[in-house]
Amino acid sequence: MTDLRILGIGDIGEVAAGDDLLTAIQRGLVAADAQLMPGDILAVTHKVVSKAEGRLVDLRTIEPSPFAAQWAERYGKDPRQTEVVLREATRVVRMDRGIIIAETRHGFVCANAGVDASNVGGDMVCLLPLDPDASARKLARALEQAVGFVVPVIITDSFGRAWRDGVVNVAIGVAGLLPLADYRGQHDPYGYVLSASVMAVADELAAAAELVMGKVDQRPVALIRGYAWQSGNGSGQQLVMRPERDMFR
Amino acid sequence: MTDLRILGIGDIGEVAAGDDLLTAIQRGLVAADAQLMPGDILAVTHKVVSKAEGRLVDLRTIEPSPFAAQWAERYGKDPRQTEVVLREATRVVRMDRGIIIAETRHGFVCANAGVDASNVGGDMVCLLPLDPDASARKLARALEQAVGFVVPVIITDSFGRAWRDGVVNVAIGVAGLLPLADYRGQHDPYGYVLSASVMAVADELAAAAELVMGKVDQRPVALIRGYAWQSGNGSGQQLVMRPERDMFR
Repeated sequence: MTDLRILGIGDIGEVAAGDDLLTAIQRGLVAADAQLMPGDILAVTHKVVSKAEGRLVDLRTIEPSPFAAQWAERYGKDPRQTEVVLREATRVVRMDRGIIIAETRHGFVCANAGVDASNVGGDMVCLLPLDPDASARKLARALEQAVGFVVPVIITDSFGRAWRDGVVNVAIGVAGLLPLADYRGQHDPYGYVLSASVMAVADELAAAAELVMGKVDQRPVALIRGYAWQSGNGSGQQLVMRPERDMFR
Repeated sequence: MTDLRILGIGDIGEVAAGDDLLTAIQRGLVAADAQLMPGDILAVTHKVVSKAEGRLVDLRTIEPSPFAAQWAERYGKDPRQTEVVLREATRVVRMDRGIIIAETRHGFVCANAGVDASNVGGDMVCLLPLDPDASARKLARALEQAVGFVVPVIITDSFGRAWRDGVVNVAIGVAGLLPLADYRGQHDPYGYVLSASVMAVADELAAAAELVMGKVDQRPVALIRGYAWQSGNGSGQQLVMRPERDMFR
């Protein structure tokens, strides 16, 4: 019987710019009475990564452009936050009814270019990490040094989707595992050769992690145990669909 | 500590048209030495549901239209399968390079209108259940009668996405739980009122289930234990985004 376990890890303490994420996560593991074991994966919400990397913006320092100010006023939004969203966007996919769907420097397409005011406090907004794959690699390296074996890291954010309602957690940064499981060429039990089955397992792991994280419950880390991940030089960028291959957009 | 467990259930035996899915699943639970407990959710891949409901098509009975034949020939596809895909589609979103992205009668947008030749054998292809929500409700009712408490059911399929590579499992049929967890109006620990957080938890549960199902390993059922689902009259249709609200398409 395949048995996957996902443990929500809270109590990592408040993370500030410059803080060591490894120390914070170890604090959470101790509080949860959990120890990392070979095979474990850690999923970490980008918010604590962004905080540790100082990717917060104090809106009181932002001067909105006339365009941002005009658009924000029309939809009752904070013009300073609209300005930050536009600065984080490399391309606006759609901008309507107070919502901005934008492409980020990483190639992600998401609401508000990943800028988010929740779980940061005061007049602050949180940006995505500059390079979530580098963030994941850094944390994975620190974890390996601390425990003596590879612990893959997935950095998550929740994105809306085309065609479907609600948001789901996805993997924006990956280190230590292959984010895509390619079944093409394998045979099913009937002898049929699978032709189109490339599973985005890192996104599925991120989605599974969200189920224990919660939005207001402050469990920013999930320990995933029992998943037979494929080792390799994976990245979150491998989950970004090249435009010319994207039949859904 | 929040602890979610996901158990892959195989050994349900070959499912044929008219078979009782409850009996098959109970067989799998016994083989896995697993017993349903209050709070458990069952995720079931649509393939066994479709098989039990006779939603298989023998391609030898299909006469392709000239349009299907011409298109299939251009891309080296089976014209009979192309014909079935077009019959299952209510609208073609895109049709290029041998791939058909289509909208189904259920409003799902997916490759080949959900028609799939894997894990069925011979000249057969598998269609989506006619009404996956009805299928989920039927199985949930049977489960409740068998065990004496509510066991929510999620029927899954793997869909491609816009913007992102790879496919992920999603919920196409739901019974016994609310597929969307609405955090809007709740406060984060800093007092900020969440404004945009509606999580598609049924899709996240489906994604989590896929991690133990595998594509070629014949574990068509996953038992999810430890998730605090919200009881209610939920459906897979609630995850279909109304076009006028969809900012991503």
